[in-house]
Formats: sequence, structure tokens, C-alpha cells
Amino acid sequence: MTNGLPVALAAARDLVAPALRNAVEQLPSPLIRQVAGYHLGWLDEHGDERSGDSGKALRPALAVLSARAVFAAPAVAVPAAIAVELVHNFSLLHDDLMDGDKERRHRPTAWTLYGDSAAILAGDALLALAQQVLFEVEGERALQASRRLTNATQELIRGQVEDLAFERRADVSVAEVLSMVAGKTAALLACSAALGAVLAGAPPAAVAALDAFGHELGMAFQLVDDLLGIWGHPEVTGKPVLADLRARKKSVPVVVALNADGASGDRLRALFAAGGPDGEEEVALAAKLIEDAGAREWTTVEARARLNAAVAELDAYDFDPSVRAELADVARFVAAREL
Amino acid sequence: MTNGLPVALAAARDLVAPALRNAVEQLPSPLIRQVAGYHLGWLDEHGDERSGDSGKALRPALAVLSARAVFAAPAVAVPAAIAVELVHNFSLLHDDLMDGDKERRHRPTAWTLYGDSAAILAGDALLALAQQVLFEVEGERALQASRRLTNATQELIRGQVEDLAFERRADVSVAEVLSMVAGKTAALLACSAALGAVLAGAPPAAVAALDAFGHELGMAFQLVDDLLGIWGHPEVTGKPVLADLRARKKSVPVVVALNADGASGDRLRALFAAGGPDGEEEVALAAKLIEDAGAREWTTVEARARLNAAVAELDAYDFDPSVRAELADVARFVAAREL
Repeated sequence: MTNGLPVALAAARDLVAPALRNAVEQLPSPLIRQVAGYHLGWLDEHGDERSGDSGKALRPALAVLSARAVFAAPAVAVPAAIAVELVHNFSLLHDDLMDGDKERRHRPTAWTLYGDSAAILAGDALLALAQQVLFEVEGERALQASRRLTNATQELIRGQVEDLAFERRADVSVAEVLSMVAGKTAALLACSAALGAVLAGAPPAAVAALDAFGHELGMAFQLVDDLLGIWGHPEVTGKPVLADLRARKKSVPVVVALNADGASGDRLRALFAAGGPDGEEEVALAAKLIEDAGAREWTTVEARARLNAAVAELDAYDFDPSVRAELADVARFVAAREL
Repeated sequence: MTNGLPVALAAARDLVAPALRNAVEQLPSPLIRQVAGYHLGWLDEHGDERSGDSGKALRPALAVLSARAVFAAPAVAVPAAIAVELVHNFSLLHDDLMDGDKERRHRPTAWTLYGDSAAILAGDALLALAQQVLFEVEGERALQASRRLTNATQELIRGQVEDLAFERRADVSVAEVLSMVAGKTAALLACSAALGAVLAGAPPAAVAALDAFGHELGMAFQLVDDLLGIWGHPEVTGKPVLADLRARKKSVPVVVALNADGASGDRLRALFAAGGPDGEEEVALAAKLIEDAGAREWTTVEARARLNAAVAELDAYDFDPSVRAELADVARFVAAREL
């Protein structure tokens, strides 16, 4: 690792970034190219070049490691890496609009600058482009990869539908919120971790192990994200303090606490029955009640368990040992993001 | 023809409808299945079964005729027919929201009933589902069909981007508006008319001729739609009288008139320079100015020319003569919808 960031993430970003940009530049609409270029971080709000943070490229890194784990060259995974990053960004463009989020990575979100319609259409275009990138691969492997990617996309959509619906429901169970997370976050990470091996023509057992690794990693990732959404520092997360509680999100810790026995659970249930925390005082109170109900601890323990499960899945196949170690590093990095 | 409706349209609808419904019922989210079922016309707003008009199924009919024209069985085209209908409805779900349209086929649009987010996510799901349906076909033909479908989808998106951008631009040329129409409408009709033949494994010359037929048909279709959008009867179109002018759409007749020499063109340019027609009187005046500038006649003549060009494209290959006649019937039906 360098500065705490696994080498695999930077390596994948360097490998994939030019190909990703090249793919986006094939889009027939100049406005969509501009909105996508802004959202993906290589253009500023005037359409001029900028350098700077354009995300962790976690999904591309998983795709590249997935090919390397079965002894294939990193280049084999590039179409898969681009495709999963495009699907991820399709969903960010639409989700930011639906959630009304005005900032992402310390920059205004695309819909706030270009309008709702441009954000919808740019998302649509990236979703279709993800398929087009895979179709440049010849033969049956492209079709297998495309099938996996569209299945993951449907799961992603299911997760987002449920995430939005849960905001208006008082009776969400822990099983339901974990199923929502499996769709919203884990499905595409599982697909990313499998797709490089699919393009490399790896045997089904290898693909299944990598898929299971990505699923568990995705669960851990979202659980940590949910912890950060309540107790993360704004300068690290780029979001206001207690952001998810202000937005009345039914994230995992909230749902766990709403289902907990005892006085803290009762008080939290009363708060949400009255419409959810409103104002500074109630938001801070909700965070305290969630912690007192044991839900912060529950979520932390669950995230750790999912991380361990992810790494254990890698024992199910005889992967390249050094790449196996890199995959485990990425998983630990993701799950250990600082509160 | 029966009651003026070509037999091919009803036959395709009967063949495709159960398979389309079956595909939608595979979607993992119950809410998305409900929104899609409502939008596609087989569910009412309570999620109960309804019967009634669920659209002309023009695109599925073209896909089925496309396979039959090269002597294949209609069933060969069913995945193509479903896929193009799904892409069409993905775009309707998103466009109705972006355009703020509250009614479609005399029913409230999906976003007005289920909200913006549900309409966005249902559109996303149908776009991904279109690919999934094609992926059920084995082998290289599925990949070829998918490539065509995603290319058409990108053109569709480009067209919609331009359609929205033109509303805010004063200097749209006739070439620009025709290019917009080629994207927004003709691309998916061209794809529909080619895709059945692709799945039937037809030679490139046959596919190219059908694609060209669909393109010209699509141009004729939109030109007639634009005429109906100004001079169509509300009871036929299901839209208020002069609807496109009220919405200040830069449809083809409007752009042709805005580019016309003479006093009527000058007065129309002045009206649009001041923000576009506002109120009953100005809307009626704009319609008259467009007609006086010769743009109604120009659009009518152009629509007829595109229809003839469409039918002529079918001479480029030795298609089944009876199916060739059915394709020509469908084209004439589409271009002759009553004002």
C-alpha cells in the first residue's frame, strides 16, 4: 500500500482511465459527453480540462484483479472495468437527482449544474454505453459478461427502489434492509469482482468464488458507509455531519436500532413515528439513541464479519497467491475507511 | 387491413404481448413491475388488471415483418420485437417526465401517479431488460442485435437531448431539426425494421435495406406526428389542440417556418424572439403564420416523399413479396394518420 491506498486501486485507475474516457468520447451527443466528463471528473463546469480526484475506481480495480487472479493479463479485463464503472456512474447520476444530493466528492452534482433532464439522459447514455463497451469483445464471453452486468443492474435498481420506499415505511426489518443493500451496493461489486475472470474465460468455480468475494465485500462496504453516514467526519466523507439522519435515511444502523428492544429503541421509534428527526437537537438525539440501542456496535461487528467472509471466499479456488493478497488488501482498505 | 389498421400490427401485438408481459414479470422489483405494467397498459392505477388500448405496437410489428420478409418464422423475431418495444417505453417513461407531459393515450403518465423517481427507475429497468431479452438468444446473432439496439439507443438519447436544447435556441436550422428527428424517432424504427432479419441470420444487404426502410418510415412518422401536434384533432391525438405550440416545441414545421423568407416568417421569428407564443391568441396566430409561411405544405410534401422513399428501399433486396406488401401497408398507415 502507498499512503494507505492499495497499489491495485491506483494501477487499475491508470490502466482504465484512458479507455474509459475514450469510450465516453464515442457518445454521439456533445452535451452528454460534457455532462459525463464533468461527472466523471476530467472536465470542470465550463467543459475545460481539470485534474484532480475522480474517485477510487474500486469497481475497475476489482475487475482487473479478477482477471489477474486467474493468471490473465490485466488488459483482458479493461472492457469489464470500464463497463462496471459506467454502470456505477449511471446509477450515481440518477441517484443524486432522485435523492436531491447537491454535492459529490466536494463538487456540485451534475443535475444541479446541467438540470434534471441532462442528468437523466447522461445516466441513460452511460448505461447503454456500458453494454456497447462489452460488445466490442468477441464471442460468447462478451455475452456471458453482458448477462451478468444486466442482472447486476436490475438488482441495483431494485435496491434503489427499496432504499427510497423505506424512507416512507416505519416497519422495515433488518432482513429487508440487508436485502436492499445486497441490491443497491453488493450486486455491482460482486459483478465487478467476477467480470474480469469471465472475460478471461475462467472456470465457473473461479467466477463463483470471486462473485461471492465481491458480494461480501459489497455488504461490508455499505455497512461502513452507513456508519460513516452517521458518525463520519465531514472533511473525510465530504458530507455534512449526521447526513443520513438529516435525510431520514433508513440505513442499516437506523433499521437495526428501530428493531431493538429497550428504552432507546422505544424513543427512536417514537421519533420516527412522528416523522423522523427534525432539527439539530433531534438529529443528535437520534444518533445517540441508535448508539445506545447497540446498533452502531452491531453494524461494526457485521461489517467486520462480512470482510472476513469476503477474504475467506478466496480460499474456494486456486487463485494467483499474490493477486489473492491484493484482493484481500482492497477488501481491508474498503472496510477500514476511517470514521 | 381491418378498420384501417394493417393486419400486421394486430398480429404482431398478439404474438408479442404475452412474451413482453412475461419479460416484465421477471424484473426483481415489485414496484417497478407495477409501474411498467401500468405504463404498458395491462394494469390500472391500483395495480389491477385492465384491458384496453396498449398502443399500436408499431415497432414489434416491424421486427416481426422484418424476419418474415426474409422467409423466417415470426417467432424468430419475438426477442427483437420485445426488445425494441422495451427501449421505446424506456424512452417514453423518461421523456414524459422530462417534458412534463401529464397524459399519454388518455391516461395519466406514470410519473404523475408514481412520482419522478419511480418513473426514472422503471425506465432504467426497461432499458436493461431490453438487453436481457436479447441475451436469451444464443450465439453471435444476439450480439449483433444487441450492438444495433444500443447504437439506436444512443441515437435516441442524442435526439432527445437536441429536442430539449432546441426549445431554448432561436437559430435551429432545418438540417439540425431533421437530424434531431433521425435520432429521436427514426433510429429505433430503423433498428426495429432490421432486427428481425438480424435474428433470422439474413444477409447484410437484406438487413441494410430494411434498416433504410425503417429510417425513412421513421422520418415520415415524425413529420406526420409534428403536423398532428399542431393541426391534429384532440379526440384523435389525445392531446390538446395546438399542443406542440403551447409547449413551444421546435418541431419540424415550426423550424421550417422560422427559416422561411417573407412576412409570415418575420412575424413568427418576432414571436419566438419574444419567448414564443403565449396564450390562446398567440398560439392560434403562430399556427396561422406557420401555415402561411408554407411550412405545413413543406412538411406534408416531405412526409410523403419519405414514405415513398421507404417503400422504394424495399426494392433493394428480394424479400418475400407478400411481406413486402405488408411492410408497405404499415408504412402507408403510419404516414396517413388523419389530421
